[in-house]
Amino acid sequence: MRVQKPKGTVDILPDVSGSWEKVEQIARDFFKRANYREIRTPSFENYEIFSRSSGQSSDVVEKEMYDFKDKGGRHIALRPEGTAGVVRAYVENKMYAPEVVKPFNVYYIESTFRYERPQAGRQREFHQIGVESFGSSSPLADVETIMMGHDLLAELGVKNYSLHINSLGNAQVRKNYHDALVKYFTPLKDQLSEDSQRRLSMNPLRILDSKSDKDKRFLPNAPKIIDYLDEDSKKNFKTITDMLDQLGIDYVLDDDLVRGLDYYTGIIFEFMVDDKSLWESPTTILGGGRYDHLVQEFDGPATPAVGFGIGEERLMLVLQKQNPDLFRDQGIDFFITNIGAGTEMKTVEIARSLRAQGFKTQYDVDQKKLKAQFRKADRVGAKYVITLGAKELENGTLNIKRLADGKTIDLSLDDVNDMQTVMKRLKD
Amino acid sequence: MRVQKPKGTVDILPDVSGSWEKVEQIARDFFKRANYREIRTPSFENYEIFSRSSGQSSDVVEKEMYDFKDKGGRHIALRPEGTAGVVRAYVENKMYAPEVVKPFNVYYIESTFRYERPQAGRQREFHQIGVESFGSSSPLADVETIMMGHDLLAELGVKNYSLHINSLGNAQVRKNYHDALVKYFTPLKDQLSEDSQRRLSMNPLRILDSKSDKDKRFLPNAPKIIDYLDEDSKKNFKTITDMLDQLGIDYVLDDDLVRGLDYYTGIIFEFMVDDKSLWESPTTILGGGRYDHLVQEFDGPATPAVGFGIGEERLMLVLQKQNPDLFRDQGIDFFITNIGAGTEMKTVEIARSLRAQGFKTQYDVDQKKLKAQFRKADRVGAKYVITLGAKELENGTLNIKRLADGKTIDLSLDDVNDMQTVMKRLKD
Repeated sequence: MRVQKPKGTVDILPDVSGSWEKVEQIARDFFKRANYREIRTPSFENYEIFSRSSGQSSDVVEKEMYDFKDKGGRHIALRPEGTAGVVRAYVENKMYAPEVVKPFNVYYIESTFRYERPQAGRQREFHQIGVESFGSSSPLADVETIMMGHDLLAELGVKNYSLHINSLGNAQVRKNYHDALVKYFTPLKDQLSEDSQRRLSMNPLRILDSKSDKDKRFLPNAPKIIDYLDEDSKKNFKTITDMLDQLGIDYVLDDDLVRGLDYYTGIIFEFMVDDKSLWESPTTILGGGRYDHLVQEFDGPATPAVGFGIGEERLMLVLQKQNPDLFRDQGIDFFITNIGAGTEMKTVEIARSLRAQGFKTQYDVDQKKLKAQFRKADRVGAKYVITLGAKELENGTLNIKRLADGKTIDLSLDDVNDMQTVMKRLKD
Repeated sequence: MRVQKPKGTVDILPDVSGSWEKVEQIARDFFKRANYREIRTPSFENYEIFSRSSGQSSDVVEKEMYDFKDKGGRHIALRPEGTAGVVRAYVENKMYAPEVVKPFNVYYIESTFRYERPQAGRQREFHQIGVESFGSSSPLADVETIMMGHDLLAELGVKNYSLHINSLGNAQVRKNYHDALVKYFTPLKDQLSEDSQRRLSMNPLRILDSKSDKDKRFLPNAPKIIDYLDEDSKKNFKTITDMLDQLGIDYVLDDDLVRGLDYYTGIIFEFMVDDKSLWESPTTILGGGRYDHLVQEFDGPATPAVGFGIGEERLMLVLQKQNPDLFRDQGIDFFITNIGAGTEMKTVEIARSLRAQGFKTQYDVDQKKLKAQFRKADRVGAKYVITLGAKELENGTLNIKRLADGKTIDLSLDDVNDMQTVMKRLKD
């Protein structure tokens, strides 16, 4: 057996896990303040949930899905993205019922899975932080979603990011645009990549998302959706951008922006980070948009919806550069060293008490020599060392030392039951 | 397409997700205070990781694994439990290196997967909270692990739980005991369940774990491991129980306790909850023990280890009965209602400011009539309603009403930038 993690996966070890926790805690607190509540859907769904929502011709479904038969012969798949499962849960649990307050606002922080070529910031198991809002077609719902993305990135300490937006219009707009793309690409078909030749009949919009140089050369002159928007869609788009102006949220109108999944309608947006120390060109860390048809496609009632997702791996790459404070280990409060017969269990008792009082406290379960215990205290970043000897135990005393400046004071054993007071004495 | 979650999985919806978050946050904080840090391993591993660690003949491996071939033909499996992946990560990332402080103490909170018959508190995707401590063979490490399990359950508000412990001794002890079991069960072989007939040659210890009535009738008279413990194992067992006595942690010496996985050595333990409103008989919600050979089986250096895991679904069942406070929705702080031309964006701005100040704040993205807005404020459990009208906006004023008693005060628009002060005025 090779004792190895599967290709494309990573271990998040204790030296960095704390920063993941902090980032997720910031996100949780942020979402809660906007009264978005958490939803957790299963890690896998019936295969059709994803093939229907992402689009049968999408790369996600065609090549990247972790799908398999379970022991009961069901065709299931690990979720490649967060939205489809949430929509499925919305419909199955009848969250559209009138007794559920609308919009139904949720967030999720979860693992997602795609069988892709691993690269920096892209793993086969990766993490998404996302929000979804069901039930409002108001432009204010779009604006709130975009504003939340903007403000969350700011709160996390992301710098140099810009908002790109575009509109996919309504169904008729997308139909007209679809026809225009077919008309444009058909004479070029033989020169397109193999994937895009297939996409041309399945979903020509996807060609615009192609990473192949064969296709890319034809993209600048391809029709732009902006030229196909009807009056209502244009008006809606302008209402949203006007509101963003009023809120002082900058944006770039981006003709080239399409999103890799089939389900979007109306406004779509991405936040891109420009950081040359990470990437040659601005790179998306948050993307989303409106998807007013998906609930219906999942056999629910017509329900407008809008949301976004953040790629957590990329976000962490950015934050490591831009907000290194999040990655600093804080160490612990107390390390209790002990020496001599009978001090062992008292040490455990003191640790137990200090932990119950809210302090990060450790002692040496291996009961090595005092010198080794002090070394360990230092290595785990203890701020204070408490020392308990056999004689001190007999006298009911111990001492505490602040490692930063060596200041030491003597305590009675009872003092450790109210460590806040001791800390005040140490401050003087 | 049937829009349904896969059989045996659940959606954790917003009405209960908050309680899951609270429980996990309590656990995180608790572990951190003991300087246990988080580790996150992939949701799936190479199949052999689990077949080797859990034992080829275990039910987990034989019947319950979600294993499949990925698109590259690799045989992988969703993790059926938390320990194996952590041990794999410990070895692969060389956490045994001298520069890593020992014991290497970690916790995890993660999804786990078993293809089992779904029942209350048992799903096909379920959640485990666990700790592992690598590198100490000291009885203090066992005691710390048990104490942490005990104190965490207490802190979560679990009641009526008891600690059951047993020892599996050392390798020679287990060998002798194995032989005694074979000797005892062989004459009874034809009367055993089919599963246990196979277990008899593969791993007779598992017969003791059988849920089949065919097997259960023979268990009371089966040999007990306590009668096979050597002096060292007995002494170690007594040292541990003496320490538990000194810490005032009650326990039951439980001859019948074996654990369902192959990797345990030395002490094993379970915390069982007795709650007749949930279960006929005491039911395990936390289990663990020492596993000194597993790191070596994964090609790492000889490394003693001990840990425990909590079944989060069962824990939540218990807490729902025993600590209902955790399940109460707290509502939000402010709902901003608005009416009249031009108030819309000011409302968003105020919400944005209040959220940035740390308050849970919502407004009506649908901009319905004032009456409907008030109704929504009530439904989302708002403590205060702020009202902004066109005239007030012109005058730079608004008012805030405490829903509990109807107390209302007038504010200037600038006041909302320092809501702490407003809250103090409202207290008077």
